[in-house]
Amino acid sequence: MRARQALSTPDAENRPKVTGTLLEETTTTAPATLSNKPERRFWGWGYLRDSIADDEKRKVDALLAWLGGGGAAVSEPRVGDFKLAPPRIAAPASLTSILSSSAYDRLTHCYGKSFADVARMWMREAFNAPDWVAFPRSESEIVDVLDWASRSRVAVVPFGGGTSVVGGVEAALDGETRNQYVASLSLDMERFDRVLEVDRISRAARIQAGVLGPDLESQLRESGLTLRHFPQSFQFSTLGGWIATRAGGHYATLYTHIDDFVENTRMVTPAGVIETRRLPASGAGPAPDRLVIGSEGTLGVITEAWMRLQDRPRFRASTSVRFKNMQAAVQGVRALSQSGLHATNCRLLDPAEVVFSGVGDRKSPTLVLGFESADHGVQAWMARALELVADHGGQWDAETVDREGEHRKGAAGAWRDAFIRMPYLRDETTRRGAILDTFESAITWDRFEAFYEGVLEDAGEAIARITGSQAPVSCRFTHVYPDGPAPYFTYAAIGSRDGDLRSAVAKWREIKAASNAAVVKHGGTSTHHHAIGRDHRSAYEIEVPALMRAALAGAKKVMDPAGVMNPGCLF
Amino acid sequence: MRARQALSTPDAENRPKVTGTLLEETTTTAPATLSNKPERRFWGWGYLRDSIADDEKRKVDALLAWLGGGGAAVSEPRVGDFKLAPPRIAAPASLTSILSSSAYDRLTHCYGKSFADVARMWMREAFNAPDWVAFPRSESEIVDVLDWASRSRVAVVPFGGGTSVVGGVEAALDGETRNQYVASLSLDMERFDRVLEVDRISRAARIQAGVLGPDLESQLRESGLTLRHFPQSFQFSTLGGWIATRAGGHYATLYTHIDDFVENTRMVTPAGVIETRRLPASGAGPAPDRLVIGSEGTLGVITEAWMRLQDRPRFRASTSVRFKNMQAAVQGVRALSQSGLHATNCRLLDPAEVVFSGVGDRKSPTLVLGFESADHGVQAWMARALELVADHGGQWDAETVDREGEHRKGAAGAWRDAFIRMPYLRDETTRRGAILDTFESAITWDRFEAFYEGVLEDAGEAIARITGSQAPVSCRFTHVYPDGPAPYFTYAAIGSRDGDLRSAVAKWREIKAASNAAVVKHGGTSTHHHAIGRDHRSAYEIEVPALMRAALAGAKKVMDPAGVMNPGCLF
Repeated sequence: MRARQALSTPDAENRPKVTGTLLEETTTTAPATLSNKPERRFWGWGYLRDSIADDEKRKVDALLAWLGGGGAAVSEPRVGDFKLAPPRIAAPASLTSILSSSAYDRLTHCYGKSFADVARMWMREAFNAPDWVAFPRSESEIVDVLDWASRSRVAVVPFGGGTSVVGGVEAALDGETRNQYVASLSLDMERFDRVLEVDRISRAARIQAGVLGPDLESQLRESGLTLRHFPQSFQFSTLGGWIATRAGGHYATLYTHIDDFVENTRMVTPAGVIETRRLPASGAGPAPDRLVIGSEGTLGVITEAWMRLQDRPRFRASTSVRFKNMQAAVQGVRALSQSGLHATNCRLLDPAEVVFSGVGDRKSPTLVLGFESADHGVQAWMARALELVADHGGQWDAETVDREGEHRKGAAGAWRDAFIRMPYLRDETTRRGAILDTFESAITWDRFEAFYEGVLEDAGEAIARITGSQAPVSCRFTHVYPDGPAPYFTYAAIGSRDGDLRSAVAKWREIKAASNAAVVKHGGTSTHHHAIGRDHRSAYEIEVPALMRAALAGAKKVMDPAGVMNPGCLF
Repeated sequence: MRARQALSTPDAENRPKVTGTLLEETTTTAPATLSNKPERRFWGWGYLRDSIADDEKRKVDALLAWLGGGGAAVSEPRVGDFKLAPPRIAAPASLTSILSSSAYDRLTHCYGKSFADVARMWMREAFNAPDWVAFPRSESEIVDVLDWASRSRVAVVPFGGGTSVVGGVEAALDGETRNQYVASLSLDMERFDRVLEVDRISRAARIQAGVLGPDLESQLRESGLTLRHFPQSFQFSTLGGWIATRAGGHYATLYTHIDDFVENTRMVTPAGVIETRRLPASGAGPAPDRLVIGSEGTLGVITEAWMRLQDRPRFRASTSVRFKNMQAAVQGVRALSQSGLHATNCRLLDPAEVVFSGVGDRKSPTLVLGFESADHGVQAWMARALELVADHGGQWDAETVDREGEHRKGAAGAWRDAFIRMPYLRDETTRRGAILDTFESAITWDRFEAFYEGVLEDAGEAIARITGSQAPVSCRFTHVYPDGPAPYFTYAAIGSRDGDLRSAVAKWREIKAASNAAVVKHGGTSTHHHAIGRDHRSAYEIEVPALMRAALAGAKKVMDPAGVMNPGCLF
């Protein structure tokens, strides 16, 4: 049980009294908050209670040494380090019970988790902290918030888990939007955290949008079903966030984007509530859910969705396949992608990536390959897949073919653990001035080779020029489709050695502009599963024709007449 | 070679001179047309050269006898039987080379192929014949047509193969739209009939929107690839039509809607040309293609698309499975749909449907089950599928399991042939006053039983009340998804015995209203793959929330500011 007590009222004028929650009754220094969740590290990834292990610290040291040495570690920020201006608008009396302007809440909702977000927190910069954070408990409270915001020109940023790496949750009221809004509000969906219904027959569930990945899966466990959607952000991201950003899951083929799992959506817009019909399929006009999916909080607040579920896998096989060179590896993966075998895992790591991830022989392109099923043994599938990779010179050690139940071991298991822990490590590298980041795309197979070489060259050149580092850009396929892969690029460079991360943030923005330009110049999409937000707009506006964007804006104008929903994002 | 000669100029004022094509040099009575295609039966399905076979005639007789006897056959209409009003607007001189107002062209483009469409043709009723039919040869000519139409308030109906069964291509300028338009134009895409590029590596092709199914497949044949999209209308429908209406293909699971095969689209709208980026996948904002797909000609004219292709299947297995009752059959099919086996064919026929189709033992619910692959033998898949249906009491004759290459034989082959020929037979039954029609939907498994019973009851009661017939409504699954089937209902009834099909059309409209109401009342979608057009709007407006429709209209307003694109359809 957590104690509730009154927050001290800020001394600015027009500030209503709000009540909040202290996280620990006995910890009088704990920040006041209206959140019911365990305290987060407002400046980075994870809960306050989480810490990184000694071997992880050694990994960070090794990485920094490899990069030529980072700077000294900036000290951990505390809430009191930030001087936040008082809210620019008073909250209406009817909403005070769900609105917070505590420093902790405003800081936790200031940014997502991109390099620039975390670095700015280390630098105690929170210029765009929202004036208010809303914690609605019902749709009618969301309606009230949107009504007030629309009347009062308050920008509303829907907030799920806050794991955006594209500036999707930052109310950056500058540039064109500077004079359009009087204040900003972050709308936190954490109270919408329940699985409301499970339909075992159709394998689907009605789920509230604010539920975090682990809570969603634990509520489904009793039914034996799973959403089986495991993005890297799983621990701290929400169903609503996944839908709003077209998140990509962990699985490599067939059903990969969250889009494929949506049966219906329910969304509160400033113009009213929209609930689409729950259906397995339809041909009735342009698919309504497809306008909601990927809308990134610009049309309204997704409150719940019926989602397709799956039975929990019982049969598994996985292995690692080494190829002689990247060309052979790509051909082998392409053959797999077009075979109709639908591998569960089909993650190709290029030569730089195997070094970076410490996988396989640390030099050959390596494919992490796996099959799973809840219904049938997958031997026939794996056997044919191995024939296909063998056609392209792929080699695997027979003993690494997992037996059932041993899927947590081996290369795939080790890789998965490192994958989940990566964001924790990145906070540490950021703190010491290193830029460790990723960008991603998708491209058809015919253009992949030129795309891969072109992007590696353009991005590598830009990173070297901007940071002076010569560290390579590495690539893996996160997902593969019959007509092309989703390449995911990782790079690391020193952004700053003197503890002033501002220059590192400026360099990161230059690199972001260069990688945006590179992926669209070479024919790819501006994002396969990281979304657009504010940081990918320069690529999005090249990728999607102006008339199409204007048409989407025409739809937005109907749902959000005052234009208060997540301004600056996407549109 | 076909001769070209001047059409006789109609005597109305303001009529430009147009040139056209006579189909056969020696047939002086052949209708003048600008079409390059073999002459169609403007009043019904197929080419003029096609005829129905004697055994098909016997089937029609048997059906009519079963229904209690139809009326006398109405005589075959001729172009000269119709008195068309002269075009209500003159065409601009710059467009005369691509505009036709010949009676044949106007009649061929007057309707789709629903019961009401064909019946009205038998009755020599073509009140909504377009004033002009355009045959553009290039995108710039489409731009010119849309510019003129937007300036002059001419309603534009994009026309692919004209096989709509939902009033999708009929310029019904009545009701609300009566005073908004001065005339109507049907825009025929037949000259856009080429596969422009084939990408063997990514298995994709850039294809013009006006290509008919058989021409598309024959142009792909050399590459060894196939779009593998075979709707019942295949022979006379086009790629652009499939995309505009979210057509469903012949295959039962996984990739069934055309939606899944679209890599990009290119569309000429009155506000400009939109070409989306060709990609295997993306997470960049609301999916742009998903606004184009299903737009039913209301946003613009789709001119081409990059489409995902597949290798031609080499391995096949198929069989028919009988179940004791519908409940067991549905459970068996549900297990298959959720198994991850992805059956190619998974078509369940209910007891009424097996009678109607003459399948199996003519009384047990029967599943037509098949697997196909271009990559691997499918024995393991079929073996597991048979285990699953056996769990639910399914029985099959071992010898009906096809061997490779024998897929044209057996129940599946016979069923397929009958399926393709059905529209030809329907012209004959229509001519003799029988209403033979279908309607379809999709619903989640948990609600299927109540849906099935409710729809059969509501529709059966309505058909009996409206027509006095007691013929049963039958049902099959055309497609199945992990979370639910797409049930497809067929009914037959006598609409008229006195050769006056007007009363039959009125009855058909009453039945349509009732079936629309039934599918949405019991929770289904207004259409799984027949589209909305004008005839399904009463269901669509219940299914899709008003605010969502308003948002889509907001997007349309940007692309089609004058509102000339296919008015009355969808919006």
